[in-house]
Amino acid sequence: MAKEFVKDITAMDEDFAQWYTDVVTKADLIDYSSVRGSMIIRPYGYALWDNIKNELDHRIKETGHENVYMPLFIPESLLQREKDHVEGFAPEVAVVTHGGSEELTERLVVRPTSEVLFCEHYKNIIHSYRDLPKLYNQWANVVRWEKTTRPFLRTLEFLWQEGHTCHATDEDAHEETTRMLNVYADICENILAIPVVKGQKTEKEKFAGAKFTYTIESLMHDGKALQSGTSHHLGTGFAEAFGIQYTDQEGKLQHVHQTSWGFTTRIIGALIMVHGDDRGLVIPPKAAPTQVMIVPIAQHKEGVLDFAYDLKESLSKVARVGIDASDKKPGWKFNEYEMKGIPVRLEVGPKDIENKQVVLVRRDTLEKVVVPMDQLETKLVELLDDIQTNLYNKALTHREERTSVALNFDEFKTTLETKGGFIKSMWCGDVACEEKIKEETSATSRCMPFEQEQLSDTCVCCGGKAEKMVYWAKAY
Amino acid sequence: MAKEFVKDITAMDEDFAQWYTDVVTKADLIDYSSVRGSMIIRPYGYALWDNIKNELDHRIKETGHENVYMPLFIPESLLQREKDHVEGFAPEVAVVTHGGSEELTERLVVRPTSEVLFCEHYKNIIHSYRDLPKLYNQWANVVRWEKTTRPFLRTLEFLWQEGHTCHATDEDAHEETTRMLNVYADICENILAIPVVKGQKTEKEKFAGAKFTYTIESLMHDGKALQSGTSHHLGTGFAEAFGIQYTDQEGKLQHVHQTSWGFTTRIIGALIMVHGDDRGLVIPPKAAPTQVMIVPIAQHKEGVLDFAYDLKESLSKVARVGIDASDKKPGWKFNEYEMKGIPVRLEVGPKDIENKQVVLVRRDTLEKVVVPMDQLETKLVELLDDIQTNLYNKALTHREERTSVALNFDEFKTTLETKGGFIKSMWCGDVACEEKIKEETSATSRCMPFEQEQLSDTCVCCGGKAEKMVYWAKAY
Repeated sequence: MAKEFVKDITAMDEDFAQWYTDVVTKADLIDYSSVRGSMIIRPYGYALWDNIKNELDHRIKETGHENVYMPLFIPESLLQREKDHVEGFAPEVAVVTHGGSEELTERLVVRPTSEVLFCEHYKNIIHSYRDLPKLYNQWANVVRWEKTTRPFLRTLEFLWQEGHTCHATDEDAHEETTRMLNVYADICENILAIPVVKGQKTEKEKFAGAKFTYTIESLMHDGKALQSGTSHHLGTGFAEAFGIQYTDQEGKLQHVHQTSWGFTTRIIGALIMVHGDDRGLVIPPKAAPTQVMIVPIAQHKEGVLDFAYDLKESLSKVARVGIDASDKKPGWKFNEYEMKGIPVRLEVGPKDIENKQVVLVRRDTLEKVVVPMDQLETKLVELLDDIQTNLYNKALTHREERTSVALNFDEFKTTLETKGGFIKSMWCGDVACEEKIKEETSATSRCMPFEQEQLSDTCVCCGGKAEKMVYWAKAY
Repeated sequence: MAKEFVKDITAMDEDFAQWYTDVVTKADLIDYSSVRGSMIIRPYGYALWDNIKNELDHRIKETGHENVYMPLFIPESLLQREKDHVEGFAPEVAVVTHGGSEELTERLVVRPTSEVLFCEHYKNIIHSYRDLPKLYNQWANVVRWEKTTRPFLRTLEFLWQEGHTCHATDEDAHEETTRMLNVYADICENILAIPVVKGQKTEKEKFAGAKFTYTIESLMHDGKALQSGTSHHLGTGFAEAFGIQYTDQEGKLQHVHQTSWGFTTRIIGALIMVHGDDRGLVIPPKAAPTQVMIVPIAQHKEGVLDFAYDLKESLSKVARVGIDASDKKPGWKFNEYEMKGIPVRLEVGPKDIENKQVVLVRRDTLEKVVVPMDQLETKLVELLDDIQTNLYNKALTHREERTSVALNFDEFKTTLETKGGFIKSMWCGDVACEEKIKEETSATSRCMPFEQEQLSDTCVCCGGKAEKMVYWAKAY
């Protein structure tokens, strides 16, 4: 064999962090490189990202956006133009100081995000109300100088899309912020089978330079939360800093209202930690590069391989089908595709051919079912649908089981320690309480959910008057 | 209007460089930014690249390759591992020296190409002959610190794909090198309608670290050549420097044989300079984001817009169709879509509707033809095919007219000065002659074409014995 197959990975409940590392490497998603904090995305990992990307790109275009490409480098002075923004990002940028063997007269920052480049461009191309809205998106790599890194979850460099839009009114920008958050939620829930809580970030947690930030938050198997996509209403702050103005229908100069929104390779980390189990990855059918893997049994026997290849061809009309006709043993193949989380394994051997049937094994429950050939297409499509739904429901049940209410700080601390997960609590709105909670429990405010509940009248931290319910959790 | 439409662009034959700059900006392909030498690829330019990318990605996958993603940064010591390679690239790299406000202990180079990263990864994952071939590709941005830059043609940062493969034998690697050159030639000739000369680079012009480099060379309207894609046989040089070895079927350790090949946004520059004219861009139908633009005439009259939108819908089955129903005047729209090089304009007004016909205007020849509604689909498809073929033939004729033979150095110089274009001449193989030609004429060897002709027995430069015919030209 090319490499030794190691069946054993660390059990999730024994050491979740090690389980995660085992899965990303043994399912061939990534490899490490000599570049600290950067990862190599291997073919299987990239195919997964490509699928997610295609689904998202389609929705981004359907909602009227166009793709563009901005430079990788940002002159330091340009990044400094918007005060809050530079404060937020300056501590975590990589800086190019030399080019072509010479020292540069102005340092160049490797983009951590591209707001300022879009703003500079928008200033050039927006003049009249007729030019609005401008709805641009970019697929790119960005760099943030993280101290501690983990594949997909936090890397020095990551891949993402960043949308940047300009609108005539505050309402239009607000609508766009909501629209794109909903697109992200749609991808998470309907493609990745990850239930999300939609809400607004607190002032402390919002994007540097934004008026407000909307977010979708999901819950991992270990009870920690993961921010899964954010959409920012930028207001007119950047427009004022960059002078992006348009002449309205009355001939008056106005600043544009902006939004930005991003979705990253981080989501693959969520996918792993929401659905994975002790056998490795579990990928929902709609996100899976390969939905069905055919494993021929006793393939040396006459007719088996031909039959298997014919099956692959006919089933390719209804699903993404692979076949492993290598000379590895079937059991070895079963392990490999379980590790890779392929939704359905199809086994077919001489007996099955004789009996006009095949065996389908679903990855999520490991149930086996014998299916007559003449029902195969229908049953397969049904099975894939069922797996998709089951994974979503399972993740939702898990989240519900691990979402608690805490009415006072003692309860908050006890729940967090014993149960983890999301804690719903009332908050007075004071950043001091938010900071105290973080300091004493290391839980952060995940969001003020759009679906509010009036759990009580008092802040979980200070006991003062409280009107906002907040989701709190330890987070990735 | 959002912006003033400026019909006049510099005439090609008056100032070709200025014409080029006018076209890339007025056709909305790019915008400049405050980042020296970097460009903003605007929606129309990006859609063009996306089309080319999709066509190429499809062919790359069809030939068995998988996409991966490697880090943006390369530790300086890693780049230095292969001697020739670092000598070739070190003078033109951008260097990150600071990250997260601290000075780095090892400088990081922004990738100018990713051979060394692939090599490091291949060393990790290749062990046995069963692991071969490894056929990887990456779509990425790269940075080369160019002194003089021009949109698409030479920019600090550009987009490309870079293929990197490992094979068991020299022959397999050689075959791969040829296969991918042919894929590039196919994209150029059959999608972009750009005829190419296939051949091998001289030792002086080959890729830094390669055994040899294959290239496709095309000729621009002004008689200068443009290297349009290269495919390198890397031999075992990198494998030796990085220790990439596999155990063969006899159990013996062997170094892998490698290739790499790249195709970049530069090709958009070729597209512009091969097909463009004094009205702006001309895009071949197969590369065009929009193949047909519908311009309603007298659109305020009842039924015109409905008819035009119905047309758009029905024609979308056979072509990529746009419609401009804005309140700009038709003449203004004609100019705009001519500038953007959209292959066919479809005009339809009240008279046409009455007569059950539309008017098609082809961008390449500006010919108008009235087409009865019941023949429209068929005629449109024929017309798009005809434009594609016509553009290729026109470019081929131009190249043939501007390809000359020179048998001695005087003839060489005179031809280059009076006529430009490709010069076919015999060469002794001595780099001294190659350098002398470059120094005295600024023409460079473009390639030793696969289709050789024995023009004479003597070198065009030194008069010594010569067996190789070379294409020479001034080049971008």
